[in-house]
Amino acid sequence: MSDFFKGIEPIRYEGPDGANPLAYRHYNADEVVMGKRLEDHLRFAVAWWHSFAWPGGDPFGGQTFERPWFGDTMELAKLKADVAFEMFAILGQPFFCFHDADIRPEGDGFAGNTANLEEMVDYIGAKMEAVGTKLLWGTANLFSHRRYMAGAATNPDPDVFAFAAATVKTCMDATHKLGGANYVLWGGREGYETLLNTDLAREDAQLGRFMNMVVEYKHRIGFDGTILIEPKPQEPTKHQYDYDVATVFGFLKRHGLEDEIKVNIEQGHAILAGHSFEHEIALATALGIFGSIDMNRNDYQSGWDTDQFPNNGPEVTLAYYEILKAGGFTTGGTNFDAKLRRQSLDPEDLIAAHVGGMDVCAKALKSAVAMLEDGTLERLRAERYSGWDTDDSRALLNHATLEHCEECVRDRPIDPQPRSGRQERLENIVNRFV
Amino acid sequence: MSDFFKGIEPIRYEGPDGANPLAYRHYNADEVVMGKRLEDHLRFAVAWWHSFAWPGGDPFGGQTFERPWFGDTMELAKLKADVAFEMFAILGQPFFCFHDADIRPEGDGFAGNTANLEEMVDYIGAKMEAVGTKLLWGTANLFSHRRYMAGAATNPDPDVFAFAAATVKTCMDATHKLGGANYVLWGGREGYETLLNTDLAREDAQLGRFMNMVVEYKHRIGFDGTILIEPKPQEPTKHQYDYDVATVFGFLKRHGLEDEIKVNIEQGHAILAGHSFEHEIALATALGIFGSIDMNRNDYQSGWDTDQFPNNGPEVTLAYYEILKAGGFTTGGTNFDAKLRRQSLDPEDLIAAHVGGMDVCAKALKSAVAMLEDGTLERLRAERYSGWDTDDSRALLNHATLEHCEECVRDRPIDPQPRSGRQERLENIVNRFV
Amino acid sequence: MSDFFKGIEPIRYEGPDGANPLAYRHYNADEVVMGKRLEDHLRFAVAWWHSFAWPGGDPFGGQTFERPWFGDTMELAKLKADVAFEMFAILGQPFFCFHDADIRPEGDGFAGNTANLEEMVDYIGAKMEAVGTKLLWGTANLFSHRRYMAGAATNPDPDVFAFAAATVKTCMDATHKLGGANYVLWGGREGYETLLNTDLAREDAQLGRFMNMVVEYKHRIGFDGTILIEPKPQEPTKHQYDYDVATVFGFLKRHGLEDEIKVNIEQGHAILAGHSFEHEIALATALGIFGSIDMNRNDYQSGWDTDQFPNNGPEVTLAYYEILKAGGFTTGGTNFDAKLRRQSLDPEDLIAAHVGGMDVCAKALKSAVAMLEDGTLERLRAERYSGWDTDDSRALLNHATLEHCEECVRDRPIDPQPRSGRQERLENIVNRFV
Amino acid sequence: MSDFFKGIEPIRYEGPDGANPLAYRHYNADEVVMGKRLEDHLRFAVAWWHSFAWPGGDPFGGQTFERPWFGDTMELAKLKADVAFEMFAILGQPFFCFHDADIRPEGDGFAGNTANLEEMVDYIGAKMEAVGTKLLWGTANLFSHRRYMAGAATNPDPDVFAFAAATVKTCMDATHKLGGANYVLWGGREGYETLLNTDLAREDAQLGRFMNMVVEYKHRIGFDGTILIEPKPQEPTKHQYDYDVATVFGFLKRHGLEDEIKVNIEQGHAILAGHSFEHEIALATALGIFGSIDMNRNDYQSGWDTDQFPNNGPEVTLAYYEILKAGGFTTGGTNFDAKLRRQSLDPEDLIAAHVGGMDVCAKALKSAVAMLEDGTLERLRAERYSGWDTDDSRALLNHATLEHCEECVRDRPIDPQPRSGRQERLENIVNRFV
Ligand SMILES: [Co+2]
Ligand SMILES: [Co+2]
Ligand SMILES: [Co+2]
Ligand SMILES: [Co+2]
Ligand SMILES: [Co+2]
Ligand SMILES: [Co+2]
Ligand SMILES: [Co+2]
Ligand SMILES: [Co+2]
Repeated sequence: MSDFFKGIEPIRYEGPDGANPLAYRHYNADEVVMGKRLEDHLRFAVAWWHSFAWPGGDPFGGQTFERPWFGDTMELAKLKADVAFEMFAILGQPFFCFHDADIRPEGDGFAGNTANLEEMVDYIGAKMEAVGTKLLWGTANLFSHRRYMAGAATNPDPDVFAFAAATVKTCMDATHKLGGANYVLWGGREGYETLLNTDLAREDAQLGRFMNMVVEYKHRIGFDGTILIEPKPQEPTKHQYDYDVATVFGFLKRHGLEDEIKVNIEQGHAILAGHSFEHEIALATALGIFGSIDMNRNDYQSGWDTDQFPNNGPEVTLAYYEILKAGGFTTGGTNFDAKLRRQSLDPEDLIAAHVGGMDVCAKALKSAVAMLEDGTLERLRAERYSGWDTDDSRALLNHATLEHCEECVRDRPIDPQPRSGRQERLENIVNRFV
Repeated sequence: MSDFFKGIEPIRYEGPDGANPLAYRHYNADEVVMGKRLEDHLRFAVAWWHSFAWPGGDPFGGQTFERPWFGDTMELAKLKADVAFEMFAILGQPFFCFHDADIRPEGDGFAGNTANLEEMVDYIGAKMEAVGTKLLWGTANLFSHRRYMAGAATNPDPDVFAFAAATVKTCMDATHKLGGANYVLWGGREGYETLLNTDLAREDAQLGRFMNMVVEYKHRIGFDGTILIEPKPQEPTKHQYDYDVATVFGFLKRHGLEDEIKVNIEQGHAILAGHSFEHEIALATALGIFGSIDMNRNDYQSGWDTDQFPNNGPEVTLAYYEILKAGGFTTGGTNFDAKLRRQSLDPEDLIAAHVGGMDVCAKALKSAVAMLEDGTLERLRAERYSGWDTDDSRALLNHATLEHCEECVRDRPIDPQPRSGRQERLENIVNRFV
Repeated sequence: MSDFFKGIEPIRYEGPDGANPLAYRHYNADEVVMGKRLEDHLRFAVAWWHSFAWPGGDPFGGQTFERPWFGDTMELAKLKADVAFEMFAILGQPFFCFHDADIRPEGDGFAGNTANLEEMVDYIGAKMEAVGTKLLWGTANLFSHRRYMAGAATNPDPDVFAFAAATVKTCMDATHKLGGANYVLWGGREGYETLLNTDLAREDAQLGRFMNMVVEYKHRIGFDGTILIEPKPQEPTKHQYDYDVATVFGFLKRHGLEDEIKVNIEQGHAILAGHSFEHEIALATALGIFGSIDMNRNDYQSGWDTDQFPNNGPEVTLAYYEILKAGGFTTGGTNFDAKLRRQSLDPEDLIAAHVGGMDVCAKALKSAVAMLEDGTLERLRAERYSGWDTDDSRALLNHATLEHCEECVRDRPIDPQPRSGRQERLENIVNRFV
Repeated sequence: MSDFFKGIEPIRYEGPDGANPLAYRHYNADEVVMGKRLEDHLRFAVAWWHSFAWPGGDPFGGQTFERPWFGDTMELAKLKADVAFEMFAILGQPFFCFHDADIRPEGDGFAGNTANLEEMVDYIGAKMEAVGTKLLWGTANLFSHRRYMAGAATNPDPDVFAFAAATVKTCMDATHKLGGANYVLWGGREGYETLLNTDLAREDAQLGRFMNMVVEYKHRIGFDGTILIEPKPQEPTKHQYDYDVATVFGFLKRHGLEDEIKVNIEQGHAILAGHSFEHEIALATALGIFGSIDMNRNDYQSGWDTDQFPNNGPEVTLAYYEILKAGGFTTGGTNFDAKLRRQSLDPEDLIAAHVGGMDVCAKALKSAVAMLEDGTLERLRAERYSGWDTDDSRALLNHATLEHCEECVRDRPIDPQPRSGRQERLENIVNRFV
């Protein structure tokens, strides 16, 4: 038992009126809504990297956090794991997520990395059993090391492609061994800095092949979790290939992967791509590729990836509303890919940030449930399109030709009158529940 | 002969050192580069709407232009056409583009619109023959009239869908009759204002069916031009379905249209979507759906569609470089979907804006040709990927598995060393030619 | 009595649990918090232009609203006024705001405009007395007419400057006569489209003189309302001179107006300028120039001025928190410079939009009051700076030199240790109250 | 002599047609335009931090550059200085700029830092004499160390204020000793992350006092360079106090500093603030506070500070045009606050980037000179405002009242007619020269 969180008791649910800053006011894990416990709806996960590996740096300044486990030895990596599971226990956190580089020190090349990873997987596996926290997803960090500076799968050097592929294999093995519910790929360096040195068609072919290898391997080893791609439009590269949900869909279709891979959608990445979070979720649902979410927000006035804990209830409500309409999470969940502000130095900040984020989400989920159970919004939506529910309209949609349409328009004749879209009234309805 | 352009002589090429503001300094239509006349490379087109129909309004102010043809009669529509062809003659413009609503007055419903359109098509057809200007593309305005406020193909009211389809038929007929090289669809209202009243899956199905009807009709009537979709991320709607090239590709793939429809890419729309113009062109080329361009820029400090004439040579050069690498235009061309600033009241402004835009493009094309003929950039690009050109690498790309990659990495062992991406050196090379 | 709002009863307060879409759930005008009635805290105003004059157009489409008062006669202007006051009565709205161009038809030049304005002022004055609605502010529309296309006060033509000045005089007279609490200037065309034809120094001098004339006239006629400038960074011009609060402060200081003029801050304009709404309010307060607010939001994914009704409670709470910390409104208030979405065609939409907006604000104000009365946030803020509250620190702030600082740092020696900024914990506190 | 740049010869001017990638094509230092040598017009400076101290990291990846001088000893700091002056010699660079933290290793607290700084100042002073490169400006890095995480002058802890002040003193001493032409302050952490823990009025007072101490000290020690503030809107903080030129002007005015401090304007920061570079220069000129420039561009599609070498000639031309209209640089100059892309690993990349940037600037300056000498633009600008050059107009500007304006408008009567703003024609003129 480390003393990092000394004095901080396990977080309890104390109800909405409590003023205890280290209690849940909305997240009561066992509360049942729509037939499921809140914990099973929300499936919260802590992100190892931001919470335990990030030193507090930004492009204009270095480390602000001074954690006793910072350093590059196996011993420190184990101390980090100890503290991590202490935090999971304090929060009652059901899941966590990791990159290989978060949990193991950098080794001597591929063999060293793999040995370190395997040792840490065993160490963590034992802790998981003891504490009861599960793995939402694992992933490989293919963007921090300088070998990946020009891409991993999309590198102009086939050796990097091979190195990345081998590394993904070890991370899939680790995820499989730890019983992960999903495996995620975020293409941090899969993109370009300048078109002047880039061959888009080649890099697309490389990335398509790489993802197919991942899917084939998944089936070969019997991993029954979901493979997820996390879209992001830019940062670190000028242009990332997995720009947004629509772009990823096109990529999957192009490489025959649309039934094999789903998306892990991050609020901040949606914003950077010019979309609302709920747009990306709704679109993924409509396209049949919704998987999981990274529930961290971007600052609307900043043009980079700020990865903040969520704090705006009404916005989060709209996200869970789309998720519930999609049937809720299956293998996916709510990962806090969120980092403390670099001035939030205290261990208590780390706990409070998660407590606040979990509470915002729990309240939002309950609001979304209430909106669904009330039913007004969905009834009005259905009514708006009800003209399409006649046999004539279905025929129009399925068999019409331009000539046939012209005939109808001339003969009836059709002179369509617009009807109110009622946007403000719908927004008012939402505000009854948030 | 109207007297609108009184005193303005046909524009002549006078060479790069000329100071005559109404002469071409770079656009010499008959100059041959890479085996083609400049006119045949660039395929310039005037946009009827901005040049002749737009009154100079913006969201905070009304009409500033006072054109003798403003009004809603057939007589004025013909005067407008007269002036348009006078301008084409002055500029030596090889092509123009139009929406139905630009060339005909609004009629009494569908029948009235169609009758007006047909009369104007005959009138314009005669002028085309006389002046020698051809039609780059026609299109239907499915966004200005209030009946389309909630979408055309994606409207919740099937009557609007039918009305839009019938209208597109009349516009395809008009385009076919006038020998148009392409037919364009820009989904001005195909998108949403709020997800709260929108069913993305339904609207996607409607739009997919609509586009299939267009393609089927094209084949039925023997129109051998290209069907083009013009991507735009937003404006007028909060979110347009044809967001960008990648999104359109996914849409085409989803509805089996990827071999039937290509894209018309506008610089300003690329910018609004968070991309560079050259990115969108290069991506469309890589995906096999590059068609045509709207060569009008957006102001980088404004967040809306400013539709300005191009004036930045180096940027335009990068666009034509990608187009030339794609083999140049086939049916497509360079449309100036550009409007005068609303303070540019004089007839001379209209001429000068086109002259300046055409000159910027002509110079840029010649710079792009020089870059290609020099060959350094393409040689360096090829060298950067040359590691992929061995048999081993090709095998890696085509047949490898994660296990196989791991084996290679362990056995050789592979420890890839990064190589310079040379971005600044490549940018310097470009600057030798612009 | 027109029948425009037929069937819509005056809106009543029915408490937070009500499901009646046309009732207030949070706005109970007579409820007292912090010693003032809600009505007197919030000082709501309807904007005449968006609610009654805007036809529903945007840059890609024309009129969608069909209001019986649309047209250009005095009779229709009076019908418009009748309906406006019917709405004020339904809403129990304490204030309204207007431009001259909203309430009178365009006349024949200046004399005609003035005559129309004066007649309408009398008509409206009588209605104000009857209904009890007061004038929050009046203003002149110096941006819609083509004469202002290149600026009003900053026009290169001195005749436009004179015309604008004369027009402002008539609008100040009207505002004074109607007992307005403020007079606002928003420089819709005071900015530039291109630096190439602009002389910044000249235009600044013109604008400075113009504002001084306004202030001098105010004192001459004994108008004791506040003169307000409304900052906006761009749209309609590429660059507006009244960019944001900080820019306006510099302008006021430069022209000796910092004690005479305050700011009317609009959420949407704050966003366009890259700031949060609460930033602009807090900054104006710190600079001593906070006056009033336009409570309409911009869509975060759109780059233009969307002028939507507010609907995000937590965000609005932060705005009122800053206002309350500044002592609350004096002459200022909460103006809904908000327009319906152009698809919101029904009279009920207009009522519901205001009801929803007023409710969001009322709830937010009460949340802000609770945060202040709780006191935790302000206590923590004060503690954070408490090191500055010693005599030594005050001396440091008031009299220190660099040499003296160096001495202190060397002698003690000083090696400052950072303390947590607690951002997430503070955000959690806010979430207890919203 | 290190061997870092082995094989790279001093860069020579070889004229615009040369294909030698390591020759100047436009920058001929001794060429005279408008009565001054190019070197004296442009006053180029290398930035020590980006060129020699930056390791190639970004928020998603670590060091890519492997420089022999990386490390934290005085010996390595001297090797770094050796290589720096070798580069200055190769480029024929007249100036450089530095932060204390660039040139000395971090010491043990203030005393250690100062001792290291002083030793390096002597070392560098000797090199300056030998090579002939001068100091454009020095500055203190008050943003990288964790002690500054919550601000330097604006820190809630007065000890940090004192530490920062003492540090600035040592850096001003260093700059003075090395004959620097300016001293710059960029407030990297002078801003806030959240308003919830921030007191704007207190922090403004602190910053105002701090800047006054700097100015007082400057006079005390007889430093006759210019004190410069470098505006930036955000990054690293959410909101920086020195947002843009207009904001800095207001700050200077508020604290009585408008005659003492000028601005150092960076293209990338102008872009982040929503302005064009030329806007910020023209505004600073109009306000009398133009000082110097950081000539590095931001990527238009990225929302963070990319600090790239300039490469767009027409854009750079507009910047120098404004500088020349302001009379050119006095103490200021053209600093390349630009970093290589992190994939540009080779020593040759560092040289080529500067060569390319200098060439773009030299060509742009010559284009700007040609535009000024041609005179058409300035003649047209003057004509546009010529209405203001009559006695009547001057009287209007200086003595008019609203009443007087109304009288004029009624009596003449005035009905102003708009005149074309000619934007496209002006843009065409610019394109004759770039
Ligand atoms: Co992120
Ligand atoms: Co993420
Ligand atoms: Co456009
Ligand atoms: Co277009
Ligand atoms: Co607005
Ligand atoms: Co407003
Ligand atoms: Co910068
Ligand atoms: Co800089």
